[in-house]
Amino acid sequence: MCARKTAKLDISKVDQNMQIKQADDNGLAWYSADEKPLELVGFNWYHQDKIFRRMPLKTEEPLPEGVEWLAWHCAGGQLRFRSDSSRLMLKAEIRNKELMDHMTQTGSNGFDLYLGGPGPLKYRSSARFKLLETEYNCELFKESRREMRDFVINFPLYNGVNKFAIGLDAGCAIEAPAAWSDKRKIAVYGSSITQGGCASRPGMAYTNILSRDLKMPVYNYGFSGSGRGEPIVAKCLAEIQDVSLFILDYEANCHQPGGLETTLPVFIDILRVKHPVTPILVVSRINYSVNDERLSERREIQHNEVKRRHAAGDKNIYFLDGDCLLERDYDECTVDGVHPNDLGFYRMAKNMAPTIRKIVT
Amino acid sequence: MCARKTAKLDISKVDQNMQIKQADDNGLAWYSADEKPLELVGFNWYHQDKIFRRMPLKTEEPLPEGVEWLAWHCAGGQLRFRSDSSRLMLKAEIRNKELMDHMTQTGSNGFDLYLGGPGPLKYRSSARFKLLETEYNCELFKESRREMRDFVINFPLYNGVNKFAIGLDAGCAIEAPAAWSDKRKIAVYGSSITQGGCASRPGMAYTNILSRDLKMPVYNYGFSGSGRGEPIVAKCLAEIQDVSLFILDYEANCHQPGGLETTLPVFIDILRVKHPVTPILVVSRINYSVNDERLSERREIQHNEVKRRHAAGDKNIYFLDGDCLLERDYDECTVDGVHPNDLGFYRMAKNMAPTIRKIVT
Repeated sequence: MCARKTAKLDISKVDQNMQIKQADDNGLAWYSADEKPLELVGFNWYHQDKIFRRMPLKTEEPLPEGVEWLAWHCAGGQLRFRSDSSRLMLKAEIRNKELMDHMTQTGSNGFDLYLGGPGPLKYRSSARFKLLETEYNCELFKESRREMRDFVINFPLYNGVNKFAIGLDAGCAIEAPAAWSDKRKIAVYGSSITQGGCASRPGMAYTNILSRDLKMPVYNYGFSGSGRGEPIVAKCLAEIQDVSLFILDYEANCHQPGGLETTLPVFIDILRVKHPVTPILVVSRINYSVNDERLSERREIQHNEVKRRHAAGDKNIYFLDGDCLLERDYDECTVDGVHPNDLGFYRMAKNMAPTIRKIVT
Repeated sequence: MCARKTAKLDISKVDQNMQIKQADDNGLAWYSADEKPLELVGFNWYHQDKIFRRMPLKTEEPLPEGVEWLAWHCAGGQLRFRSDSSRLMLKAEIRNKELMDHMTQTGSNGFDLYLGGPGPLKYRSSARFKLLETEYNCELFKESRREMRDFVINFPLYNGVNKFAIGLDAGCAIEAPAAWSDKRKIAVYGSSITQGGCASRPGMAYTNILSRDLKMPVYNYGFSGSGRGEPIVAKCLAEIQDVSLFILDYEANCHQPGGLETTLPVFIDILRVKHPVTPILVVSRINYSVNDERLSERREIQHNEVKRRHAAGDKNIYFLDGDCLLERDYDECTVDGVHPNDLGFYRMAKNMAPTIRKIVT
């Protein structure tokens, strides 16, 4: 770690994080995501597995195939810190040469940067690179004025990250990031919509918008097409500590008759074993462009399960009707009739935030 | 053209458009974009050149290289009609195997469908096809209930279209589309932002949103990186007849000192030769994520030119400050700090519409 402005030189002898890094030919010193005081968010098992993965590598039984694959996708991953660096370069190697027709490469395979300070976080830039490139080098920030700023880098929504490093001015100050308003995690479980399909850049996934607005760490457990409420997935989520709220938003992948009735009670039961009083918010599905006659039926299944548990004494369980999230002209809010565009994600986050605030504060 | 419900059989002898088309093996009859009563919008020179191109093939002097290339891109193109078909298939061949890293294929190379009736147009579906495919076949609509509906198909924003056909139920009713509130064209000249970079699907380009909201034909003359206000481009636009409003939104490509001062007066002079009283609205640039110190200077150049002309007797010229279009958290409104995402385009259209309504009604 480069020397803080206030650090004394001898600290480098007792803490190697405090050693002054060698500058490369461009005057940059390079940091990995797990160097203190940088804060890596969104990878709950990073401390044991040392990889960018949303689920643990080893589980008591195999994860469902889709979840196993998608656990590598870095949706909701964030790197946070404060620095007076005048530049930020990013080097990354992503796992797969993949791109979907209805999602941008900047959103599925790229990173984006928000800056704060003073004031709220503002979007600054996106990693831009050649189509289907898996290794890239991007300048995310350059400014002549040196001052302390908050940096938040959002990770790719639909790809994994093998290698990651950021380059900052050698010798710049680096500090721990601004404090969260509540450092306990919000863990959101769901479908492709939760994972961030099809935001134009990572910061526009609704979980990342919520994180900025609420100033809380929001961990993304959206698994595209694979949010089916399996018990082993619930067991993994139940392992997460310091959770302020679980959000269950998986109707979109569990719409067959019998799906929600069967999985939802079991999923919540499993969470409740280790999280007896942690708030749980069940969110029903957003509107698609084609009417689904069974939408209200599934909404009732979820609402009734919440009411049943509430009546039985669980006062920390809540329901939010997804029908309201995209507002009146909901048809404008998707790229394909199903997956939100950035207008849709913005509305989802802004319309979920008041409910979440009431629950967690 | 398939028989209208009300057509008498003998009309097919005098008007071949009235002949009943043969169904293919799937029960569909196929139509090209220029068959009556379908209405093709956005290609002002289609009647002479018979191609999907936004500028004339022959001009009195060569078009600037970028404009020549981008004239083939079909931004703003629409096909409109009414039908009771229970299906809509689309076959297309696009010009280039191209895709940008910060734009979806659905937006740059695809089509999307809006449906109306009764009530306003609502987004229904997008053409989905294999990445970088140049020929595709997509089902855009299927519904068991047969009733008369308005169909609006938006053309690709960042690619050309060589071949295009739609398949409807053989024997279905087809009628002219719903009437515009004002059938005269709004012609919008500008940059990549005007062209629709980087909407997630064609219908989210701000010119197409305006067309839906105002119920007016909006012709898109955005030329990515090439909106430099050249006289030959102005001469082409001046050829367009039945214009209710010209919008000049090209600051983003003309930001060098001297650019706007030089080009804007000449551009307007050329339009005024053939359109002495047609309203002209000059719109200054939206905000980018990085502050531009000369933004207000360029805004003043444009505003002053409008004020100067107004004072000199041109009462049909107006200025709109682009600074307000993306609203307070404008940073959230782009994919890369410059090009609007769907949140940005939605706000651009909604915030331009009241000014346009005041001018044209």
